[in-house]
Amino acid sequence: MVMRIVDLRSDTVTRPTDAMREAMASAEVDDDVLGYDPTARRLEEEMAKMMGKEAALFVPSGTMGNLICVMVHCDVRGSEVILGDTCHIHVYENGGISTIGGVHPKTIKNEEDGTMDLVAIEAAIRDPKGSTFYPSTRLICLENTHANSGGRCLSAEYTDRVGEIAKRHGLKLHVDGARIFNASVALGVPVHRLVKAADSVSVCLSKGLGAPIGSVIVGSQSFIEKAKTLRKTLGGGMRQIGVLCAAALVALQENLPKLQSDHKKTKLLAEGLNKMKGIRVNVAAMETNMIFMDMEDGSRLTAEKLRKSLTEHGILVIPESSSRIRMVIHHQITTSDVHYTLSCLQVRLLFIISLYTIHFLY
Amino acid sequence: MVMRIVDLRSDTVTRPTDAMREAMASAEVDDDVLGYDPTARRLEEEMAKMMGKEAALFVPSGTMGNLICVMVHCDVRGSEVILGDTCHIHVYENGGISTIGGVHPKTIKNEEDGTMDLVAIEAAIRDPKGSTFYPSTRLICLENTHANSGGRCLSAEYTDRVGEIAKRHGLKLHVDGARIFNASVALGVPVHRLVKAADSVSVCLSKGLGAPIGSVIVGSQSFIEKAKTLRKTLGGGMRQIGVLCAAALVALQENLPKLQSDHKKTKLLAEGLNKMKGIRVNVAAMETNMIFMDMEDGSRLTAEKLRKSLTEHGILVIPESSSRIRMVIHHQITTSDVHYTLSCLQVRLLFIISLYTIHFLY
Amino acid sequence: MVMRIVDLRSDTVTRPTDAMREAMASAEVDDDVLGYDPTARRLEEEMAKMMGKEAALFVPSGTMGNLICVMVHCDVRGSEVILGDTCHIHVYENGGISTIGGVHPKTIKNEEDGTMDLVAIEAAIRDPKGSTFYPSTRLICLENTHANSGGRCLSAEYTDRVGEIAKRHGLKLHVDGARIFNASVALGVPVHRLVKAADSVSVCLSKGLGAPIGSVIVGSQSFIEKAKTLRKTLGGGMRQIGVLCAAALVALQENLPKLQSDHKKTKLLAEGLNKMKGIRVNVAAMETNMIFMDMEDGSRLTAEKLRKSLTEHGILVIPESSSRIRMVIHHQITTSDVHYTLSCLQVRLLFIISLYTIHFLY
Amino acid sequence: MVMRIVDLRSDTVTRPTDAMREAMASAEVDDDVLGYDPTARRLEEEMAKMMGKEAALFVPSGTMGNLICVMVHCDVRGSEVILGDTCHIHVYENGGISTIGGVHPKTIKNEEDGTMDLVAIEAAIRDPKGSTFYPSTRLICLENTHANSGGRCLSAEYTDRVGEIAKRHGLKLHVDGARIFNASVALGVPVHRLVKAADSVSVCLSKGLGAPIGSVIVGSQSFIEKAKTLRKTLGGGMRQIGVLCAAALVALQENLPKLQSDHKKTKLLAEGLNKMKGIRVNVAAMETNMIFMDMEDGSRLTAEKLRKSLTEHGILVIPESSSRIRMVIHHQITTSDVHYTLSCLQVRLLFIISLYTIHFLY
Repeated sequence: MVMRIVDLRSDTVTRPTDAMREAMASAEVDDDVLGYDPTARRLEEEMAKMMGKEAALFVPSGTMGNLICVMVHCDVRGSEVILGDTCHIHVYENGGISTIGGVHPKTIKNEEDGTMDLVAIEAAIRDPKGSTFYPSTRLICLENTHANSGGRCLSAEYTDRVGEIAKRHGLKLHVDGARIFNASVALGVPVHRLVKAADSVSVCLSKGLGAPIGSVIVGSQSFIEKAKTLRKTLGGGMRQIGVLCAAALVALQENLPKLQSDHKKTKLLAEGLNKMKGIRVNVAAMETNMIFMDMEDGSRLTAEKLRKSLTEHGILVIPESSSRIRMVIHHQITTSDVHYTLSCLQVRLLFIISLYTIHFLY
Repeated sequence: MVMRIVDLRSDTVTRPTDAMREAMASAEVDDDVLGYDPTARRLEEEMAKMMGKEAALFVPSGTMGNLICVMVHCDVRGSEVILGDTCHIHVYENGGISTIGGVHPKTIKNEEDGTMDLVAIEAAIRDPKGSTFYPSTRLICLENTHANSGGRCLSAEYTDRVGEIAKRHGLKLHVDGARIFNASVALGVPVHRLVKAADSVSVCLSKGLGAPIGSVIVGSQSFIEKAKTLRKTLGGGMRQIGVLCAAALVALQENLPKLQSDHKKTKLLAEGLNKMKGIRVNVAAMETNMIFMDMEDGSRLTAEKLRKSLTEHGILVIPESSSRIRMVIHHQITTSDVHYTLSCLQVRLLFIISLYTIHFLY
Repeated sequence: MVMRIVDLRSDTVTRPTDAMREAMASAEVDDDVLGYDPTARRLEEEMAKMMGKEAALFVPSGTMGNLICVMVHCDVRGSEVILGDTCHIHVYENGGISTIGGVHPKTIKNEEDGTMDLVAIEAAIRDPKGSTFYPSTRLICLENTHANSGGRCLSAEYTDRVGEIAKRHGLKLHVDGARIFNASVALGVPVHRLVKAADSVSVCLSKGLGAPIGSVIVGSQSFIEKAKTLRKTLGGGMRQIGVLCAAALVALQENLPKLQSDHKKTKLLAEGLNKMKGIRVNVAAMETNMIFMDMEDGSRLTAEKLRKSLTEHGILVIPESSSRIRMVIHHQITTSDVHYTLSCLQVRLLFIISLYTIHFLY
Repeated sequence: MVMRIVDLRSDTVTRPTDAMREAMASAEVDDDVLGYDPTARRLEEEMAKMMGKEAALFVPSGTMGNLICVMVHCDVRGSEVILGDTCHIHVYENGGISTIGGVHPKTIKNEEDGTMDLVAIEAAIRDPKGSTFYPSTRLICLENTHANSGGRCLSAEYTDRVGEIAKRHGLKLHVDGARIFNASVALGVPVHRLVKAADSVSVCLSKGLGAPIGSVIVGSQSFIEKAKTLRKTLGGGMRQIGVLCAAALVALQENLPKLQSDHKKTKLLAEGLNKMKGIRVNVAAMETNMIFMDMEDGSRLTAEKLRKSLTEHGILVIPESSSRIRMVIHHQITTSDVHYTLSCLQVRLLFIISLYTIHFLY
């Protein structure tokens, strides 16, 4: 008997579907380092069009996508980038923009909804000319959806206003759009509209879209030319990438329409969780496919204890902190999986709490 | 007739005294890049002893001193440093630790008194091993006195506690002690006690001490060995530096005893300013030789307007923002200069305010 | 009618075989950034075993493989690497070891056979301690086979001797083994024996082995741990890489045994070419799967003219210089392709030369 | 009794003269980080004028001067610099252009006369656009005089021709002119003529000119603006540098006219040495103020043995290798010192050789 597995660790854990596997197996390919893979061209053209930008480039990962974008915009030594203090680039990408790219980060507090205060952004900008004491601000980064806020969406209007600040000061705007399609679906706004003000966007193919590997970055033709060289320098130039791009093209067809349903299942799970004793979920804030489940203050529950407990039921999650667990919904989580998760958790919580109570009584 | 000049822009503006000039003129020197300058050796030994560390190294500037210290502690690629969000290294040194050193900064909010919350520091530390998502925290930086807080002092106890956190996690502690002697005098605590927990300290010779050029960094013997190589790489290896070190040795003799008096004059000026209409000074917070003078809310005074006005009287200051002016006292500012500054400012303020009032009446 | 294509541009142009495509389509996968892809584990274990090293890591490209290896060995700032002046790392990888890694290259002349003079290597080593004028030599790099020498093999004995020099001076030895299997087959020496002295090796899966994407680096357990973190930093951490590793596992099975035949076809082609008027091939030097075909001195033939001419017959080649064309044989070039190439070239050469002669007569 | 010291280690060992010391003691100064030191302005203007460039900047050392120049010309990531394989920047400056600046060096063989072959230079240039495999060549560096060739001079014509190559390919030309005044005097060509083709030059004040500290870099106004910011980043911004610049101004007055005499004494010493048994000096090649003295083949003399022997007479030299000693003449070496050196060496050589002979006889 095989145990039921409900993998809520991330939307990066999806397995390629049969259609993707077939596409990989039959992909038309050529050497893309030499610049000739036809399936890569198709994917890049489609992504550029969807995002409303001139050109696109397939890259091995979202981390490389962001790294390339920051380094191309900040290609002159002595550059500073303004970005949120809880954003993925600053927190989870090994500090690569500094340690590899030599770019100085200036962080602004990320609000609960993933935005940064516009006044704070503008105040942080340093004159690219004239001072010998300051690095030159050259770039602002946003993240949409903002993962560390639980997948909150940035509106088109907010992004536009940041874009206006950038333009006014001669800066560039990069959007880490790893889950930009989730934002688009949740907001009911076309994805190209969401990133209209952006000079570059990185989009992940292997998160909600479910492709096995890869991200795409988009921008102007000249930006993508520079990005291509830097991709090679970093070691992201790969040969017959048509096999991966073919899977990504299927992902766009197959899974983009399923994001709406992912979000519904997320709400279902969030609401169910929030009813349980001992844990709390800010249901309204769970706008897309993520849930932050917090242990209630004063409860002796810990995230790690709960994680272990759930693992015994085949439910996989990742603690964010000692009192918070993150759950991510994707197309391979069914409504039935959600109900299963809720019922397992309910049983476990009752058991754990009763234990505590007994312990407390004695 | 020569105009009276009261230069309050910084304590870096002091001119070398006659004794320093004589010392420069008669300094015993040799080629220090080859390692033989005897006066440099004397200064380095004296500074190491004063700071209670094994060894010392003369460097051309405080910026280089800090850059070298951060880079030596973070000599392995992929390092992160924890430091205050308003500290000099982060704000005024061109982002060199990232753009030159490839070190990733993680900023913590500097409180009004220049400290960082100890819990926040510890929470920011990332495990140097084990994760592939995070840079490795290797260093914590403090600044004592903390310039952007108006020259506030960090106590020996606070520094010790940060040192304990560092030790517990296998990190190093660097103190940017550009004005550490001011802190020592203000707190009445020997300077070596203030930096007991530090693995390295940079101390400025050309601020309150009044030497024309240079800083000294101190640390363990092996630390200083590495620092020496990096100093050469950065271009800070200089030839007959005995001429500068001789001036610095005089500065230690001559001006260290005068810091107490600098602080008294600072208080005098701060209290005088705070009595004036239209401006505010947090007198209690002016612990050493700096004053932040704020335009009162609602006043139509601007820092730039006031600066220009004062310049006409030969009083030189630097605005920190549109509504704040910084003044710095040093050994070449007399009590008479303080009174002169106060009376000029009083006249100017009355005039400006009366203009506003007239303007307001009509 | 489809034109016959004989693609001799590189051994990177191979298309995945049916077996590889099937393997991709049925690969067992998981999220490898989280560290769980089972097929990646299988490939890495197999490669480590074949190379006689403790551990292995799949990377997106040979360029990233080399970059990671150099940067891990030279992880302390101020490092220097000794490498050949015509080696791939120095010439074709965007200078990434300096521009990304901050490592200083010290080049030694590559002899015609791809070796560097042992005395010259040892003379170039700088004491990692003691001097403030020199970077610290930390690494020596070899390339086997050496592409810019036409795919010449470095013997196990030569590599051992370089390894001894490295050991004697406390340095590491990295072998860029993009085509190490070709060397192994040509020399009749097991591949692990060839790299016995190496601390790290990068091996390409998408050159002669014919996998669509990827390289593997091997080394000690602790080396690979550091490499994994750096792979993430550079953006080489990818998700369901089992699809690529499955293809690579097939490549090892399917194509490794075909390298011998590739080399035979290479000899056949080289000998045939060398008999032709106007061009020259150093047949003895073509030890593996590459051919350098030189225009004879005094001939008015240019590499570019010949390339265009061959393209009309569907024969694809890349000029190395104005008078040299490189051809690379791989498992998708048949003996018949070789004969076809020879006959097309013969016709073309006769035609071109007769044209010249006529032109010359008038 | 004090031992006579003849310090031939380098022209960097000179002590400031009385006139320099007086100038330091009476220098008019201000805070140069704030940009106001008047003596610095005077020196920079004079140097810019002498070198025929728009602007100049005082820096703490020649190493920083070169580092800044290379980094400003190569301010865009992914840059390559072409330079000689024995030049000072490549060999003696810690590899800073790579390890700090992230610039990739492409070395060309330095001929015996310090030049690089013009064809080799041009062949090494890589197209700044278009390829994803190559870094972009952005700079060529020359060194005049070329120290590792024994102080050989590059002619104005040679420099012009390199400048033409640079211009033709859109590159910049930097001249490491640490000893450019020696070249000017030896060639009888004004210094500005020698560097007419250069976009930047670094000139050392503390070598033959005998100032205690500092170098100056010259170039266009906009180049120097960028250089100033980078100087601050590297930590080369210093406060009352007028004290150093005053000494340098004296050095230009006092010692520039003495270089001719330095060269004459060098010739005298070289010729004297070359007559001695056991050692060889290529007298014709000693064009300026350096001498390379080689132990004759087959002689059992070593450079280290001879150095020790000379030290007993107070004659200080530095071995270049096991069989070569470098001697450098400067304004504090008198003709009498030269004769003293020759006679001491003669005695020592006779003694050592007789020892060997006796040893050989038995």
